[in-house]
This record gives sequence, C-alpha cells and structure tokens, in this order.
Amino acid sequence: MKLQRVVELIEQEPAFNLVSHVLPDGDSIGSLLALGEALQKLGKKVALFSPGTLPKKLSFLKGYSSIAGAGMDTAATPVVLVLDCSDPERLDLFREPVLQAREIVNIDHHVTNRSYGTINLVDPQASATGEIIFRLLQALRVPLTASICEALYVAIATDTGSFKYDNTTAAALRVAAALLEYPLKISELAQRLFDERPLAFYRLLQEALATLELHGNGKIASMTVSREMLARHGAAMEDIEGIINYTRNIEGVEIGILFFVENPSEVKVGFRSRQVDISVLAGKFNGGGHPKAAGCRIYSPYAVVREQILREAESLWESYDNAGKERS
Amino acid sequence: MKLQRVVELIEQEPAFNLVSHVLPDGDSIGSLLALGEALQKLGKKVALFSPGTLPKKLSFLKGYSSIAGAGMDTAATPVVLVLDCSDPERLDLFREPVLQAREIVNIDHHVTNRSYGTINLVDPQASATGEIIFRLLQALRVPLTASICEALYVAIATDTGSFKYDNTTAAALRVAAALLEYPLKISELAQRLFDERPLAFYRLLQEALATLELHGNGKIASMTVSREMLARHGAAMEDIEGIINYTRNIEGVEIGILFFVENPSEVKVGFRSRQVDISVLAGKFNGGGHPKAAGCRIYSPYAVVREQILREAESLWESYDNAGKERS
Repeated sequence: MKLQRVVELIEQEPAFNLVSHVLPDGDSIGSLLALGEALQKLGKKVALFSPGTLPKKLSFLKGYSSIAGAGMDTAATPVVLVLDCSDPERLDLFREPVLQAREIVNIDHHVTNRSYGTINLVDPQASATGEIIFRLLQALRVPLTASICEALYVAIATDTGSFKYDNTTAAALRVAAALLEYPLKISELAQRLFDERPLAFYRLLQEALATLELHGNGKIASMTVSREMLARHGAAMEDIEGIINYTRNIEGVEIGILFFVENPSEVKVGFRSRQVDISVLAGKFNGGGHPKAAGCRIYSPYAVVREQILREAESLWESYDNAGKERS
Repeated sequence: MKLQRVVELIEQEPAFNLVSHVLPDGDSIGSLLALGEALQKLGKKVALFSPGTLPKKLSFLKGYSSIAGAGMDTAATPVVLVLDCSDPERLDLFREPVLQAREIVNIDHHVTNRSYGTINLVDPQASATGEIIFRLLQALRVPLTASICEALYVAIATDTGSFKYDNTTAAALRVAAALLEYPLKISELAQRLFDERPLAFYRLLQEALATLELHGNGKIASMTVSREMLARHGAAMEDIEGIINYTRNIEGVEIGILFFVENPSEVKVGFRSRQVDISVLAGKFNGGGHPKAAGCRIYSPYAVVREQILREAESLWESYDNAGKERS
C-alpha cells in the first residue's frame, strides 16, 4: 500500500524538502504547513518551499513565513515531498531540483496527476490533498496540534468551497469533523477564506454589474470588464475569478459569460455553466477548460467578439434545450 | 431522557400534526419534511403545517407541496410536534390549536426556547433542529431515504451557512457525513440554498455598491438603498439582508452599515460587525439585535441619520480600538 511506503520512508529518513505548486491555494499551503509541522514533531529536519508569491490571505497560518521561494538543495537533502501538484511543470523553478531528487513523493488528489514520483500517493477520490495528509498523519501516529488541524481544515474547506462542491464526500466531512475536535474559529476562517475581498474587488464588481445583460430568454448572462477598469481600481487578475461566478448565480441563468477586454484587439472570454458542456464553446475559439468552467482568448475587437460569442452561446443552449425537450 | 420520551410517544400514537415557525427557513422546513416522511414510513398518519408563505427556493424538496397553511385540528389529532420554534408566538395562526393540544413536543435548538411543550426536546448545542431530528430518527430506527437525507442536509447546511458559522461542530459535520452516504447533489443544493439570487437582487446590489463609502480610516463601510430602488427593481425586503453582508466583507472593515431609506422622514439602519459589540450602537437609537448583527429605525431625514450614525460608529470603534491598544 502506497500510504505505508510513504510512512516507512518518513520513518527512515532524517530530513525532507516539502514543496507546493505555483500559485498555491489553501489546499497546497495548508497541506505543506500541516505535514511540515508534523514531521518536525517527529524530530525530522524540514525545509518548506513554494514557487513564486504566496496568497496573503493565508498569512495567518502558523509557519507561513517559514516557506521559502528559492534555495532547495536536493543534493544535500535528497527526499522531496511534493504536495497537491499534478505536473512537475507546476513546480516552476523547483522543477529541476525536484526531478533530480533521489526520492520524489508525489502526494496529490488531482485525477490528471502525471505520476512523476518515485512514490505516487495519488487519490482522486480525496476531496483535497489535505485529506490525504490527514490519513498520512494518522498512519504516522503524530499527535495533532491546533495549528495542524487549522491548516488541514483550511485545505479541505478551500478545495470543497466550504463544502459546496461535489467533491464534498462523507469521508471529507468526517475528516473535517475530526479536525474540529480542536476548537478552531470557524466563522473567522470562513470569512478570511471565502467572504473577505479588497475594496478594489467591490469597485470592480459594481462596474461589472452595471454592464450585466441577459440574453436568450434569460438563460444567458453577460458582463464586461476591462484591463483599464482593473488598473483604475487597483484590482488584481484573481478578482476577475470572483466576478465571473456572479453571472451564473442569477436565477434562471444557465450560461454565464464574462468578457475581459485586454486591449482594443484582444478579449479574454470566461464561461460558467450549470448543465450544458461549455468547454465545447470555448473549444470553438481555441480555448478549453471543464464542462462547467471554461475560457478562450480572441484577437478581435470587443464588439465583434461579443456578437460572435453571444450567437454561439445562444445556439449551444438552444440545441441543448431542444435535445432535453425531445428526451422528455 | 427526553429523546426516549419522544420515541415512546411516537411509537404509541397513531397520528401527528407537525408544524414549523412562521417565515420558515431551510432548517424548519427540512426538519418538518424529514420527520414527516419518517413518521409515514412508520405507518403513522401525518399532517404538515407552516404558517404563511413558504420560501420558494425550497420547493424542490420532496413533500413541499403537502405543507398546509391552515386547518390544523388538534381536537381530532391531539399530538403536535413543533419544529425549530423558540416561542409559540412564532406559530402565528397555529399558536392557538397548538397550545390546546394534549401533547406538545417542542423540538428545537434555540438557546432562547421558552419550553412551552409538554415535552421539550431542546438542545442548544445542536447546530440545527435537523441535527436533533437525525438523532431522533436513529433512535426510532427508521431507515433513511434519499429525500429524508436531502431534507436534513438542507436543514444543517442552512443553519451553519454551509459550515461557515461557529455552530459548525464536529457533531454537525458527522451528521452531515452520515447523510451524504446517500448520493446528494451537493453543488446543486449549495447553489440553490446560498448562491442563487434573482436578477433584481443584482440590480439592487449594483446601485448599493455605487454608494459604497469607507469612513474612519477604512474601518467603517456604508451603503445606502431606498424603498424606491427596491420597487424600481422589483426586489424584496429579504434581498436587503443579502446586501448588508457586503459591507462587512471588505478587507479591513470592522463595522458595516446599510442605510435603508424608507421615506423622506424614516431610515432603517442595519449594522454588521466583526469584533466590536454593535448592538450597543443600535440600542442608542432604540434598536437592538446581536453583538455582530443589529439594527434600528430612526424617524429623521436621511442626511441627519447618516451624520449621527457615522459619528457614533466612528466613536464606538475608536473607544474599542483604544481599549485594545491599552490592553496590549
């Protein structure tokens, strides 16, 4: 069993490099910090790494400031634990030292994981890498601490969207329950992770909502923002992600579209869908993604892009809807 | 033990009236439907009641259309199970028949419950009445069905705000996990319960965000909406509740304020707070509420109210903040 092999390796070795993927989220950082603290509790030497910048909103987690952005030496410490990373490309500047390590322990829950490790502890049934780390810590018989529980709770809550996504399984909820045996400040955590946003986001949201239009008998909603708006409010690209979900959260809307005007001849289009496979539409414009969240980039003026995309979206919805009517 | 007394009563009696509180939420309706279906499975005769209008967004729940708004006959069926109702006043038109019933089983989790039952199964430690119903069904050894699990999941998810509030306990998560042994469509449920809103809400939000201002070094945020705006967009008073939370979700903001201009000489003021007890401020204007969510109504023109409230809010925050600095 893979878990047992990882347990044995950890018991044998004295020192470890731990690393998360680039643009890390709560699952990646939470898993990194929880496993890092646990290994230290076992008397191991531990170095934590994450490529690029860390999300500031996770800075309250214990150990956050000990995560380094460079300097992994896999010649000196040849065992690497890679967390929540489906592909070595996502390790950015750590790709090379990791791939040269003697032991690469690939701990992940992405179904797309490329099995690049010497041990691949990959469980696509797990809601989050944090859920796998919890099981690993149990197998290692590490006593949990409040900060380990907090980090793992952040991991699971993040990847399930506070238990709203379909990866919210009975197993995920049981692990979350076990973590809650420590008195975590749930409402404070949830506010930090999910509800709190900078003022710039709300300024941008206001302008975006002012452009909100419904099409195709209310089945399609669109909003438009631009690089210029982003700059004017000091908003970040990640704020765009928060805004696109608003299009799909309108009662009756099946397809949400966000136009992001990069410049006069380039528009990024983001799609969200409830039922119909929207990646097909993105694919028509050389984009891609998942059935319910996809995107593409079109090198044409906004007015042209808008007209094309809305026409295609309406036609996609109509054929989906007609097929449904025929079935019933 | 109270639970055992309820079990015995249910086993003895052939027929039951079940009733929720007025303006019922997901916990109230979910508990009502789950217990109703379970009792029917046990061969009991069951009548379901809820005073006034039901929330449309719960209409997908099995049995929803069987809930009656009138006609409870406690002379014919003298056993009433009252769900999630802290006070008989909240039973509205059912108050009288309920209080005349031979057996009133008061099943609730509100700490303010007035113990008006002949049996009071009240557990303030429970996250939701649905959590108590789950334990009752286990004690009754009723086999669960997908629809019972869905109704109870809705109950617990609603009252914990999708596991974001501080009543999210290990016990609540374990019950949710047990319910998820049935394959519920979690993301669909979450979207219906938490994320989906009518177009009118987003139109109102846009206008509200256009009035967003920060005060007191960014510690206080205010927005203004009016009865006239509500009417113009066809929005409902409940949409206001959704909007006020936006004031507190801005990074750095400690006190959020929503002014609702009822008419030229009347303003309702809603408060949200992170740390400071805001009910004190509402109290100064003959209002009230909880430490982190309160409100008041002032019979003065908007400009006057706004100036008064902002001055008081800034002074409240300053004294709280200074006290904190002295402590540390």
